[in-house]
Amino acid sequence: MTYFVHESSYVDELVTIGSGTKVWHFSHIMKGAIIGRDCVIGQNVYIDTDVVIGNNVKIQNNVSVFKKVTLEDNVFCGPSAVFTNVINPRSAYPKEFDEYSSTLVKQGATIGANATIICGVIIGEFAFIGAGSVVTRDVLPYALMYGNPARQHGWMSESGNKLDFQKKRNGALVASCSTSQTEYILKNNRMSKINENHAD
Amino acid sequence: MTYFVHESSYVDELVTIGSGTKVWHFSHIMKGAIIGRDCVIGQNVYIDTDVVIGNNVKIQNNVSVFKKVTLEDNVFCGPSAVFTNVINPRSAYPKEFDEYSSTLVKQGATIGANATIICGVIIGEFAFIGAGSVVTRDVLPYALMYGNPARQHGWMSESGNKLDFQKKRNGALVASCSTSQTEYILKNNRMSKINENHAD
Amino acid sequence: MTYFVHESSYVDELVTIGSGTKVWHFSHIMKGAIIGRDCVIGQNVYIDTDVVIGNNVKIQNNVSVFKKVTLEDNVFCGPSAVFTNVINPRSAYPKEFDEYSSTLVKQGATIGANATIICGVIIGEFAFIGAGSVVTRDVLPYALMYGNPARQHGWMSESGNKLDFQKKRNGALVASCSTSQTEYILKNNRMSKINENHAD
Repeated sequence: MTYFVHESSYVDELVTIGSGTKVWHFSHIMKGAIIGRDCVIGQNVYIDTDVVIGNNVKIQNNVSVFKKVTLEDNVFCGPSAVFTNVINPRSAYPKEFDEYSSTLVKQGATIGANATIICGVIIGEFAFIGAGSVVTRDVLPYALMYGNPARQHGWMSESGNKLDFQKKRNGALVASCSTSQTEYILKNNRMSKINENHAD
Repeated sequence: MTYFVHESSYVDELVTIGSGTKVWHFSHIMKGAIIGRDCVIGQNVYIDTDVVIGNNVKIQNNVSVFKKVTLEDNVFCGPSAVFTNVINPRSAYPKEFDEYSSTLVKQGATIGANATIICGVIIGEFAFIGAGSVVTRDVLPYALMYGNPARQHGWMSESGNKLDFQKKRNGALVASCSTSQTEYILKNNRMSKINENHAD
Repeated sequence: MTYFVHESSYVDELVTIGSGTKVWHFSHIMKGAIIGRDCVIGQNVYIDTDVVIGNNVKIQNNVSVFKKVTLEDNVFCGPSAVFTNVINPRSAYPKEFDEYSSTLVKQGATIGANATIICGVIIGEFAFIGAGSVVTRDVLPYALMYGNPARQHGWMSESGNKLDFQKKRNGALVASCSTSQTEYILKNNRMSKINENHAD
């Protein structure tokens, strides 16, 4: 199996696209970009020069992934989500590449539809950015964020359910995902999955 | 008279498009979609599989109408308005079609430019969603909504004027549209047009 | 030197494009538009009939510049920034051209990514509209605006640095840009550059 690019899209030279990935209509992948396997690149997507995108990333319609934005495995970008890479753009004062700010979206995170991500932030693993939010600073792993500016309104499981930390166990709060039954622990305002190492 | 599709756009098989409808540049209409007559479909619009769109609907540039979103007659979608159809998307946990949430935009409603409509809501007849709003729940007919999250800030007439309910008549508040002179009544927080049945 | 238009884009008749300007993929420039020199027009941009755009204007991906929107020299429009030109659109009550509201973005101003500009406003010289903002009224020159609705949160220099007005000189507040060292003066809530006329 190999990848698919719709006839209306442009893929520039020196691009790497993983097996099973689909690039739909009116999209443009710039030189040197690396896209993992089993990704979906929607309509009118733009992937900038040398951008790196992990495996199984879903990029919905109208998303532009600019230079210095990195999307790890299993990231979901909703339609019309917007990234940036210059914090204070002025047409008469163009920035050099080394003045761009980096944005890192860690594995499994969700960027909701029409959300705006101001550059220079790290969005933690499995964070969930609600639709229409404006993210202005770093986001904790598993954090549920929304609003303008986005503020934290709880925690989300890996499969996308809001967690209700009410049970206590050995001094920490514990919750389980309503669909997967996976257990999570909340301690010192950091959430993690209970696995063999953490089990008690 | 029949419909027009610009040469740069794609219309898949089994699509129905009404007479007088225009599909402009770089748009894609998916299989089985049904679009009424006298619609305008702007640049870079996406109409998903089996979506149903009424008559005289205006869809401005960059709007994607996803599966399970329905637009009734005379709906106006401003540029870059964003719909969704999964409430908690995660790339590693794809949803089945029957897990998508429906969105219904009823006749005559306006979705402002760059507004975000979170799935699962009904937007009432002639509701008016201001530009840049984020709609998170059902919207009453004729309601004027804006903000993030969108809250109600008044009532709009069918022709798009804000109503000023100050006159009282038989225990209900009455207002008339400043351009059409049509009269409306507000009772128990529900607004309606005064017609032969309601006239007093 | 002359201008460049990517093969996937459409430029209609009677368009004027200045030397050095680049029009990238999947864009459409309508009849009668006038675009200055050294502009960058990104992917999926739409320039409406008779729109006038100055020199050295950067228009990022997915921006539509509608009729009666004017962009002066050195304006920066971030990706997916959204303009409008009808204040109360209704599909069943289409507006005539003379009912559209004008929007003027003055020289050097920045419209942040995914910002929404409600029509009928003037955005002053070198104003800076933060990403994801919704602008609902006129913006002062050099004002830093953000939020929904956008409110002023300070002042920006021409080269894009936030100014800290703490020094006083002859009864007015004075600040200097951290990169250019240019001095600015704030008096009666109006900011200006200190030049030969204002120097003291």
